[in-house]
Amino acid sequence: MSTPEYLTGNKEAIRNFLDKFDVFLFDCDGVLWSGDHLFPGVPSTLDLLRKHDKQVVFVTNNSTKSRQDYKKKLEGMGIPATAEEVFGSSYSAAVYISRILPKQHPDLQQKKKVFVVGEAGIETELDAEGVPHIGGTDPKYRREVTPEDYKLLAAGDPSVLDPDVGVVLMGLDFHFNYLKMCYAYHYIRRGALFLATNTDSTLPSAGALFPGAGSISAPLVKMLGDQEPVAFGKPSQAMMDAIEGKFRFDRSRACMVGDRANTDIRFGLEGNLGGTLGVLTGVATKEEFLEGDTRPHFYVDKLSDLLEGIQEQ
Amino acid sequence: MSTPEYLTGNKEAIRNFLDKFDVFLFDCDGVLWSGDHLFPGVPSTLDLLRKHDKQVVFVTNNSTKSRQDYKKKLEGMGIPATAEEVFGSSYSAAVYISRILPKQHPDLQQKKKVFVVGEAGIETELDAEGVPHIGGTDPKYRREVTPEDYKLLAAGDPSVLDPDVGVVLMGLDFHFNYLKMCYAYHYIRRGALFLATNTDSTLPSAGALFPGAGSISAPLVKMLGDQEPVAFGKPSQAMMDAIEGKFRFDRSRACMVGDRANTDIRFGLEGNLGGTLGVLTGVATKEEFLEGDTRPHFYVDKLSDLLEGIQEQ
Repeated sequence: MSTPEYLTGNKEAIRNFLDKFDVFLFDCDGVLWSGDHLFPGVPSTLDLLRKHDKQVVFVTNNSTKSRQDYKKKLEGMGIPATAEEVFGSSYSAAVYISRILPKQHPDLQQKKKVFVVGEAGIETELDAEGVPHIGGTDPKYRREVTPEDYKLLAAGDPSVLDPDVGVVLMGLDFHFNYLKMCYAYHYIRRGALFLATNTDSTLPSAGALFPGAGSISAPLVKMLGDQEPVAFGKPSQAMMDAIEGKFRFDRSRACMVGDRANTDIRFGLEGNLGGTLGVLTGVATKEEFLEGDTRPHFYVDKLSDLLEGIQEQ
Repeated sequence: MSTPEYLTGNKEAIRNFLDKFDVFLFDCDGVLWSGDHLFPGVPSTLDLLRKHDKQVVFVTNNSTKSRQDYKKKLEGMGIPATAEEVFGSSYSAAVYISRILPKQHPDLQQKKKVFVVGEAGIETELDAEGVPHIGGTDPKYRREVTPEDYKLLAAGDPSVLDPDVGVVLMGLDFHFNYLKMCYAYHYIRRGALFLATNTDSTLPSAGALFPGAGSISAPLVKMLGDQEPVAFGKPSQAMMDAIEGKFRFDRSRACMVGDRANTDIRFGLEGNLGGTLGVLTGVATKEEFLEGDTRPHFYVDKLSDLLEGIQEQ
């Protein structure tokens, strides 16, 4: 395994790096910002990349926001963006359910509904793809479990378990509770497919880690005897294929930028991109990038270190 | 591996079986009842065992009930019992924290509080052992997470993270939520021990399966990079040692009765008990008992099948 090249402070190396690529795929949390804290110099760096005709794509595993929400978040932070430049795990999952699933699982033709465990971002993207759904932000599922629930769920009563549900889609859910676990489990045990927007174990916020979407699906994985969900976030190549399908870029001229070795960097490496750039403003440490099993081609202390190479071009 | 002996309908085999043992350890859910449904013939079977001077012990991984709660549950169903006959995973955990932990972890002397994720049963047993605790059924933790929570938790602010907490104890929690996941994670990341009353993935109720205590700790296991909690329910031998310490029985004259191969039967086998009896009224199937990796010495269709052997003795 080769040693990642350190670019910070090395103008020539940065210029060579930038010349290699036309497309930059950016992870967001931990690269552009942490929680609500934008890293200094990020808007200028993206601005200059665009001025040098680089295509910028924001790739996020965050399932709680739709592409429109993300565009707003980017703009609110001073980063101009279009919804088309945003690729989220909820969008990837919605596209899979609406376009791929009917071909792969013709048996589910009569079971078109999705039981959602997650926030509004998933619902918005399912709506955009015309996929019917229940659960999600419906307050009906934000309550305590009752003895009546046990009986009805155990009996598979159609008044609680919608017979049209063929898919359970789990993403990050700040309103996760015992009742939703019960519903998800009973739908899956009755034949529904087990999907997850992504399986990140943690979510960086305010400079620390909080439970990620993978922590929401973890109870189901445990209950189902270690059955993992089909997942759409990085490092799933379903997401890379969707991005390539949309932007039609040359993979050898594309670079994935991220702070996590086992999701972002792996996503780029397994997608055979021309390059991967690790940043040290998020989860991974320098040691992880230099000595871990999944190493980026390049790394910098922070994204704006690239400015040194761009500004003088 | 030997083939389990099938006792149902075989009077002589049942009599030989009963003669081998003085002590019967009973798993409850799936053996005596399922949810609120008592299996027919169970009270008579236990009654007759007692009349034949067999010691009866109820061993339950259910962490939501204290020993007193369980005694009441047993009595409410027509099974006379004393609190001393009940061994629960919450009780085992409380005994460990109050008596063993101070010797094993003298560094935690100044951090005596337990952050509880679970129901009242855990709190009652901790109270009985004089262990201070927070979390649990406190309504303060039954709410949505706020941006302020992220900031305070990330900063380790003592107004939210009690500096005296040295242990996180997780059991089955019908009021589990995202906020509790955050608290548990941040306490553990700051040095608290990660304990679980038990790690059963599911809980039988109303003839079906629902999320068990292991599903509540699963998100933390995922967030901590597959770090498993120290657990006290079956098949943990910490529980067997506690039972033996109390009843001072001869293990070779004791039999564990249960419906799950990987918890109940394993508990008896690893505890070197004289025998294990599987019942088919719960989780395990006949195939699992006959062909699985963990097989009981004996099995019956249902517990009351033993009546045929006792009544005519």
